[in-house]
Amino acid sequence: MLVHDRAVRFEEVDAAGIVFFPRFLNYCHDAMAELFAPLEGGYVQLVNGRRIGLPAVHVEADYRSPLRFGDTARLEVTIPHVGSSSFTLHYRITLAPSGLPVAEIKHIVVTTDLVAMRAVPIPADMRALLEQHR
Amino acid sequence: MLVHDRAVRFEEVDAAGIVFFPRFLNYCHDAMAELFAPLEGGYVQLVNGRRIGLPAVHVEADYRSPLRFGDTARLEVTIPHVGSSSFTLHYRITLAPSGLPVAEIKHIVVTTDLVAMRAVPIPADMRALLEQHR
Amino acid sequence: MLVHDRAVRFEEVDAAGIVFFPRFLNYCHDAMAELFAPLEGGYVQLVNGRRIGLPAVHVEADYRSPLRFGDTARLEVTIPHVGSSSFTLHYRITLAPSGLPVAEIKHIVVTTDLVAMRAVPIPADMRALLEQHR
Amino acid sequence: MLVHDRAVRFEEVDAAGIVFFPRFLNYCHDAMAELFAPLEGGYVQLVNGRRIGLPAVHVEADYRSPLRFGDTARLEVTIPHVGSSSFTLHYRITLAPSGLPVAEIKHIVVTTDLVAMRAVPIPADMRALLEQHR
Repeated sequence: MLVHDRAVRFEEVDAAGIVFFPRFLNYCHDAMAELFAPLEGGYVQLVNGRRIGLPAVHVEADYRSPLRFGDTARLEVTIPHVGSSSFTLHYRITLAPSGLPVAEIKHIVVTTDLVAMRAVPIPADMRALLEQHR
Repeated sequence: MLVHDRAVRFEEVDAAGIVFFPRFLNYCHDAMAELFAPLEGGYVQLVNGRRIGLPAVHVEADYRSPLRFGDTARLEVTIPHVGSSSFTLHYRITLAPSGLPVAEIKHIVVTTDLVAMRAVPIPADMRALLEQHR
Repeated sequence: MLVHDRAVRFEEVDAAGIVFFPRFLNYCHDAMAELFAPLEGGYVQLVNGRRIGLPAVHVEADYRSPLRFGDTARLEVTIPHVGSSSFTLHYRITLAPSGLPVAEIKHIVVTTDLVAMRAVPIPADMRALLEQHR
Repeated sequence: MLVHDRAVRFEEVDAAGIVFFPRFLNYCHDAMAELFAPLEGGYVQLVNGRRIGLPAVHVEADYRSPLRFGDTARLEVTIPHVGSSSFTLHYRITLAPSGLPVAEIKHIVVTTDLVAMRAVPIPADMRALLEQHR
């Protein structure tokens, strides 16, 4: 499990004064990028060097409590499923440090050759890393 | 059914060259705002005047084909379910004009008093409008 | 002169309740894209087809009055200067319809070959269009 | 002088593959927020607790070299001028670790009572902090 803390930015709220709901997915993406940091060159090298991307094919989000400017969201990331070319990320988001449940997000991505824009098998180093977070 | 067309903006793509997946939800939100245009003062008056917001409680998205700068997304919005304080929006997103399937998104929102931050019954004028899109 | 109206979006405000100051530049960029609509294929074809971009080299912004959700900004765009490869856009932003001054923004861009990432002379069709807005 | 490092995010580039020019101002704002961290409760408490905001009244940006996904921008922040209610921030942005010049940004803000939305004198603790960065 990866734990990723993220302070809500000044510009991430909306006219209702709460974090705009699509931005929760930005938080998830940032956490996913951090999860790949142990790979050589990290997420950047994956995308820029190896030209492998991870487009979402499915997202499911349950929002339980709003986030506001001044809050810190804690994302606990696990990998409940690893297939041949796709895998599932699960994000449990709470308010830090209280632990108040904020959201649960499921995010399925497909390992994709960004040049050909087609699915490719999960590379061995990625797979090994993903297995550590199951 | 509401039909909402949206050209992909220059800054909405990511380093993989495709529309960043959370931004599909921004498109949905824009379409929802347009859906409420027939209310007096539209979505703006709902939020600013009546202080009623529509925070998401659940989102489900299936991504089928990427969007790029230069594409126009067509969102067909229907309201498959209306409860007492919550309702469900369904967005079928295609590429315009080809009709290529891009995404299907389900979005459940709760009619919320933004001052007290608690659910309220769907007001009569909103309910009547929602029923037109079932 | 091009006149470009833009309603403030729900998610464009910040925790102070006003449009976050960098987003004024997004509005300017949208207006610039609209200004190039008369070119064949518009701004999209310029970027995607001809691989010509317009990176900013200089921006100057004077902010006079905040924008809020519910406001409509009116951008009046003129082209006070056209050089060999660069040109200057001037945006006078007011509140519509009252005309309250909101901001004045000067934006200098360089016509750039996006493949080689180097300045190129302004193409003839762009130059002719720019001259119409001096 | 404050030194603030910031890795370019995956979603911060545009269809030209470089960081979209308004986002440089987001980077500046983040650095400014960090600069106020030594105040009790930091920038969050300033905005949420004391209801003091820092809207921009003037921005000047010179862009010298683009940023791409994978780059880390280094912002060196100084405060060249402190007035009675306004002050000036200067950001020298370079590529880290090479030191390649990326941008120079001048940002003038006005200490503002967010309830009355009017300028107020710079509070003593803020002034003392600002003086440390002249």
